[in-house]
Amino acid sequence: MSSIPELFRHLTAGVYVIGVANGERRDAFTASAVMQVSFSPLLVALGISAAHESYTLLHEADGFAISVLSAQQQELAKHFGTQSGRTVDKLASTPWRPGVTGAPLLRDALAHFECRVVNDIEAGDHRLVLARVIDGAIARPNGQPMLYAQTGNLDGSESLYPATFS
Amino acid sequence: MSSIPELFRHLTAGVYVIGVANGERRDAFTASAVMQVSFSPLLVALGISAAHESYTLLHEADGFAISVLSAQQQELAKHFGTQSGRTVDKLASTPWRPGVTGAPLLRDALAHFECRVVNDIEAGDHRLVLARVIDGAIARPNGQPMLYAQTGNLDGSESLYPATFS
Repeated sequence: MSSIPELFRHLTAGVYVIGVANGERRDAFTASAVMQVSFSPLLVALGISAAHESYTLLHEADGFAISVLSAQQQELAKHFGTQSGRTVDKLASTPWRPGVTGAPLLRDALAHFECRVVNDIEAGDHRLVLARVIDGAIARPNGQPMLYAQTGNLDGSESLYPATFS
Repeated sequence: MSSIPELFRHLTAGVYVIGVANGERRDAFTASAVMQVSFSPLLVALGISAAHESYTLLHEADGFAISVLSAQQQELAKHFGTQSGRTVDKLASTPWRPGVTGAPLLRDALAHFECRVVNDIEAGDHRLVLARVIDGAIARPNGQPMLYAQTGNLDGSESLYPATFS
C-alpha cells in the first residue's frame, strides 16, 4: 500500500514564486498549484491558502505575478516557502522588479506571468483562484523548470495529508 | 519576443488519461490540466472542454478517474488525445479495468486516482471541475511521469493560443 503523499507526488507540478503587491506593501510565496485552464481568454488557476498573508494582498490588488523557478533554484523555493511574510520581508534579499501590475517579479526566474483575478472559489482547505494572464515573457530560454516532485518535503506538506481516503 | 505557446510551456504539467463511465457507456481522453488543490479534504482540479464528448459522461457519472502516464507512453497520450470518442471506442485496444466508481483505469499507467465531482465553474473556453479524490494507488513505483512540455504540439494546442495578451 503506497502512502497518500507518495501517490499525490505523481501529479506533476512546477514550482513558482507568486508575487503580490498593493502600493508599497508586497509579499511573495512559493506555490506549486498553478495550471493553465483556458486558451482564449488565457486563464490560469492558482491554489492558495486563505490563511496565507498574501491572500489578502492578492485580493486588494486583484492580481498577482508568477515567477517560474528553475531546477537549480531550490534555495529560492525554500526562502519564499518556509518563512512568513508577516514577520520577514522576504523580498529584501532577492532581486526583483515590479511588473506592469506592480506585482513583484523575481529577476532570476525562468519566466514571468502577470494575472488579474476573475474568480475565486472555495476548495476545501484552500481557495481556487482563476485569473486572466495579461502579460508575461520568458527570461531565460534554455532553463529547465523545477519539478515539485523533486523538492521532497521542502514545504512540510506531507503532514497535511489525511492517512486514508475516507 | 517569445511566443505565447512557448511561454505557457513553462507552466509544468503532467499527462493523464481521464476515464469516465456511465453504465456501459465509457470514454477516456488525454488531459494535462490536473492539479491538487486541497489536502483535507483531498481535492483536485481538472480543466476540461465542455465541447468534449466526455464532459457529458463525466457529469452523468458525477466522477472520473485519472491514469498517470509515464514518460514512455507517448503513444497512449496520442491515442487518447487525437481521436474523438464520438467515432472511435478508444478503450477497445488498450487494457483497462473499472475502478471503484466504474470509471476506466488504464492498466499500464503509473498511478490512478478516482474522483467525485464537487464543483464545476466556467473558465473561459474550458470548464474547471473540482473533485474529491476518494481512492487511488501507485501501480508502478519506479516510473517517471510524462511531462506535458515534452509532448511538443502533440495535442495541436499551439493554434488555440491568441497571438497577443490583449
